[in-house]
Amino acid sequence: MTANDAEGRLERLAALPLRENLRGATPYGAPQIDVPIQLNVNENTHPLPDSVRDAILRGVEGTLDTLNRYPDREFTTLRASLARYLGHGLDADHLWAANGSNEVLQQLLQAFAGPGRTLMSFPPTYSMYPLLASGTDTRYIAGTREPDFTLTPDAAAAQVRAEAPDVVIVCSPNNPTGTSTGLDVVEAVYAATEQTRSMVIVDEAYVEFAHTGTPSALRLLPGRERLVVSRTMSKAFGMAGTRLGYLAAAPEVTDALRLVRLPYHLSAVTQAVALGALTHADALLATVEDIKAQRDRIVAGLDRLGLTPTPSDANFVLFGPLRDATAVWHGLLDAGVIIRDIGLHGRLRVSAGTEAETTAFLDRMRELVDAGVAVPAR
Amino acid sequence: MTANDAEGRLERLAALPLRENLRGATPYGAPQIDVPIQLNVNENTHPLPDSVRDAILRGVEGTLDTLNRYPDREFTTLRASLARYLGHGLDADHLWAANGSNEVLQQLLQAFAGPGRTLMSFPPTYSMYPLLASGTDTRYIAGTREPDFTLTPDAAAAQVRAEAPDVVIVCSPNNPTGTSTGLDVVEAVYAATEQTRSMVIVDEAYVEFAHTGTPSALRLLPGRERLVVSRTMSKAFGMAGTRLGYLAAAPEVTDALRLVRLPYHLSAVTQAVALGALTHADALLATVEDIKAQRDRIVAGLDRLGLTPTPSDANFVLFGPLRDATAVWHGLLDAGVIIRDIGLHGRLRVSAGTEAETTAFLDRMRELVDAGVAVPAR
Repeated sequence: MTANDAEGRLERLAALPLRENLRGATPYGAPQIDVPIQLNVNENTHPLPDSVRDAILRGVEGTLDTLNRYPDREFTTLRASLARYLGHGLDADHLWAANGSNEVLQQLLQAFAGPGRTLMSFPPTYSMYPLLASGTDTRYIAGTREPDFTLTPDAAAAQVRAEAPDVVIVCSPNNPTGTSTGLDVVEAVYAATEQTRSMVIVDEAYVEFAHTGTPSALRLLPGRERLVVSRTMSKAFGMAGTRLGYLAAAPEVTDALRLVRLPYHLSAVTQAVALGALTHADALLATVEDIKAQRDRIVAGLDRLGLTPTPSDANFVLFGPLRDATAVWHGLLDAGVIIRDIGLHGRLRVSAGTEAETTAFLDRMRELVDAGVAVPAR
Repeated sequence: MTANDAEGRLERLAALPLRENLRGATPYGAPQIDVPIQLNVNENTHPLPDSVRDAILRGVEGTLDTLNRYPDREFTTLRASLARYLGHGLDADHLWAANGSNEVLQQLLQAFAGPGRTLMSFPPTYSMYPLLASGTDTRYIAGTREPDFTLTPDAAAAQVRAEAPDVVIVCSPNNPTGTSTGLDVVEAVYAATEQTRSMVIVDEAYVEFAHTGTPSALRLLPGRERLVVSRTMSKAFGMAGTRLGYLAAAPEVTDALRLVRLPYHLSAVTQAVALGALTHADALLATVEDIKAQRDRIVAGLDRLGLTPTPSDANFVLFGPLRDATAVWHGLLDAGVIIRDIGLHGRLRVSAGTEAETTAFLDRMRELVDAGVAVPAR
């Protein structure tokens, strides 16, 4: 589109009977720029192993005989397979899935939030939370973190008690900071909602990248019927193109989601692709240790450069504040490396790629430091 | 689940902080019963041709190299392909798609309806409309049809003027009656919304099955920026398992949907499957004429049996009222044929299957007439 066309489109959009809360909004999404080294959206940059590719293709082939039919609305086989992967004594009754964890979270808000209700999370955190709130007419409440982006049990519980939100999301490891949140925080938040009977969601999209020994909130599920742990196949599994998010919770939580899900929301093909991949979960996860090593390299490298990386349990690293984050972002792009400017006071976020991609990023960062472009903020 | 388990689940569901408007609700969806002849959910019962299967598999294979990456958020290639299929001078800018036309409609309501706004359609019509309204906190307004289920321009326009809804959906051919709605009705409804500037959606999920010469509302799009025509690949294309719904409208309508869609809502695999199939649209649609012939056989056959079928432009036929529709439904099921009891005053709906499936249905109906089970209501 030319600038004139774009302006005309905006005017014509404004002339439509759009809902008031959408007027002036812009679509969510990172720039999709085709450069050699893409470290901006926390993907797993390793391609799928051959065994997984074969399993996916065989799975899709298996759907073709009945692709004219609606899929299994209950995706029972996939739920059982996800439960086996998670362990922790879970079975298919505890599992639910949708087209990406954004849809899982949207369904949770449709069931438990909405007009007259509230969602609370703790910024800086995943920027889709307020958008999902807006999309479901839920009022969003922004909590706070410590200056180092951690969350303590007392502070989190006090904020939840004060605000009494209907739904709380704790992202752990937290995007975009990489910060893990201890299970003691989740326990404290859950305890703080005993009176209000709020739903507590732990978003563990990045949990497979946590340092060895970091426990999952899955172990807190028994006896906590308002606790939900959400996961995704987009990150550690390296399947962002598949769009498969899922959750584990008490069976009655999945029953609540059955009331708001669109019928047949998960296609037969999506079910088959996810199932095929899960039969090779070990091969899929083989890249995780390498990614963790690259993540630790980034933290160490940026630390040596004096650029104050935040300790990370995810597959990305937040660093800064920088004197001029935009200049650094462009300096990387000039070298064919795209990372994410998440609009956070001079900080940037970089995903851990392959060893070569990580090296290219760190080398370029050293050049930008030497050139006086990458300079810590005072 | 045993009855006890099920009761416990219901009690535990009721103890969750579910939204008030969901309390006591049951999940939407036809019974999924595995019988030989499934004519209950208006699928295309013909399996995919080999050329389409090959194209789909090659398409999915083409995604595997980059399945670790997020998909093209704009699904530009797919939009262009859908535009080519529709013709009518449309291009990619006029097209939008989502995981099934239910999601397309949900996004339209998220953009143009919601709390404090209203959706109107004309029952008996697609039963998901009020559920989509409820899911987006939109108030649903039920219009009326003539006793023979048709909709006249004057009556439709008068109802729309009286109710001033924010969004109107006209389903044509209409589910579950099969009734086509003339373009004069759509023109009259659109004209009746000039003051209120409401959105007008024509749901053409079944339009490919209309009798030859029936025009599509696509021809009304030029100059009508509040008009939307929705379509699906689930019916004529025989791809219900793929979950691909789409729409054509003014480009600014698609811009509005970009504000409410979840990012990356269409997986790389879904895009590839749909695209592969569309390259063989002719082969995919080869079964349509046969299905129309079977539909006409059902109408003629039920008419001969005195069971008052409603004239149909879809791939299904509504018939009745019957003295005991439930007995007829069970009588068919006993013979391995499942059709749909849509809860409409003694009427039943049957999808047109293959020639053999249609014959089995009609033969069994004759038996049920002879046995005194299938009897018109007095």
